[in-house]
Amino acid sequence: MLNEEEQEPFRTIKLTIEYDGTHFSGWQIQPRKRTVQGEIEKALFCLTQQRIKITGAGRTDAGVHALGMVASLRCSNHLPLSAFEQGMNNLLPEDIRINKAEDVDSSFNARKSAVSRTYRYVLYRTKRVIGRQYGWWPKREFSVEPMKEASKYLIGGHRWNAFAKSNEVTDDFFSQVLDIRWHSTEDQVCFEITANRFFHHMVRIILGTLLEVGYGKLVPEAIEGIIKSRNRTKAGQTIPPQGLFLVKVNYNKGLGE
Amino acid sequence: MLNEEEQEPFRTIKLTIEYDGTHFSGWQIQPRKRTVQGEIEKALFCLTQQRIKITGAGRTDAGVHALGMVASLRCSNHLPLSAFEQGMNNLLPEDIRINKAEDVDSSFNARKSAVSRTYRYVLYRTKRVIGRQYGWWPKREFSVEPMKEASKYLIGGHRWNAFAKSNEVTDDFFSQVLDIRWHSTEDQVCFEITANRFFHHMVRIILGTLLEVGYGKLVPEAIEGIIKSRNRTKAGQTIPPQGLFLVKVNYNKGLGE
Repeated sequence: MLNEEEQEPFRTIKLTIEYDGTHFSGWQIQPRKRTVQGEIEKALFCLTQQRIKITGAGRTDAGVHALGMVASLRCSNHLPLSAFEQGMNNLLPEDIRINKAEDVDSSFNARKSAVSRTYRYVLYRTKRVIGRQYGWWPKREFSVEPMKEASKYLIGGHRWNAFAKSNEVTDDFFSQVLDIRWHSTEDQVCFEITANRFFHHMVRIILGTLLEVGYGKLVPEAIEGIIKSRNRTKAGQTIPPQGLFLVKVNYNKGLGE
Repeated sequence: MLNEEEQEPFRTIKLTIEYDGTHFSGWQIQPRKRTVQGEIEKALFCLTQQRIKITGAGRTDAGVHALGMVASLRCSNHLPLSAFEQGMNNLLPEDIRINKAEDVDSSFNARKSAVSRTYRYVLYRTKRVIGRQYGWWPKREFSVEPMKEASKYLIGGHRWNAFAKSNEVTDDFFSQVLDIRWHSTEDQVCFEITANRFFHHMVRIILGTLLEVGYGKLVPEAIEGIIKSRNRTKAGQTIPPQGLFLVKVNYNKGLGE
């Protein structure tokens, strides 16, 4: 027996997606490029015979990975979720997987409903062959302690002009960094950052700048002045994409979680 | 000032090699196949203009990785080791790397001088996209504790007929398992085994059999009977290559270490 709500013509589905960015030209659909969004929409068409657009919580660049990207979609297909999830995973290539499909309230929008996102950057301490797609080796030694010290200046609300790709099309560079965590082992250093908003290349420029501190070229306190300068040329380089992972997109309770 | 020894026409070099087996038809050179040995000998030819054969400590199958494969070679080239190492790494593809090149005594042979080898198998507890090349997910739940218990029966000297590929061309299946270690995290289980000799598919069949214990289909004590049976059909399946790593080749002190 189906109740009234299940008879609605459209449902909203929240997808939690893992992908290996190595062989993608990023998330966003583009003509003649292999993109994550493009592959998912293709699989959706095969599964439902409907052209369904998905909304991602954000865009990732070429080579950037995701452990927990979230996307939302509206469709009139009424497959049970488990069949939907399994059907999609059978159709998707091996470098994308739907880890969870959930029915959510029609007000849910993966991008607009998100309250924060968490990214991870993995730095290797030595050159690696195994795992070279999943981290970056800066080719020189760095000390983590001063980088940790420097990262404290990032916490809180700031205007991130100095840490955004110079052609970013926005004039409001304000966002709030809510949390920063470090996990180091003998072989690698993981940096995790949670903010309510990220600008293009922001995590990669932040790490590129923290590495200048790790090399001893900047003192930890210098970060404060760089943020205040709002000048991209004061910050470090944009380090490569393969160390970057979108770990999680966080939503208010009740909005899809 | 070069001394007499450095003037010898031939030198013996020991290479410690890391490779990602994903896109190789294994270690051993084969016509028209992409192999690790083939790529290294090609790079050696480019570097030295000499056709130099290398001897690997063992052979790995297609898809199997190595963190510390060892190979030896004899050549009349007298490049300094650092230039040799760097030159090779510039010529090698990104999925192979010489992590160390050392001059060793002419009696050193990577295969014959080895006293033991250590392999690792990585089992994932869930399906993975990131890292799918570096571990295997058995598609069902397994308990590690009974597998650990079962693995104690493997220690010591045994005839491994039941745990070797059925067409293995030897009639002496004796070897000594010297050490077994387990490292488990929330996401994965690592099994490491050191033995003085391994037979074709041995580690993959051992893990395939231990998994039968992990699934609850065999009791830990059953391993003893399977070893004694010397019957390949009594052991479990040969599980896939991508979870397997040659971690280390161990030599007697004085022979290249």
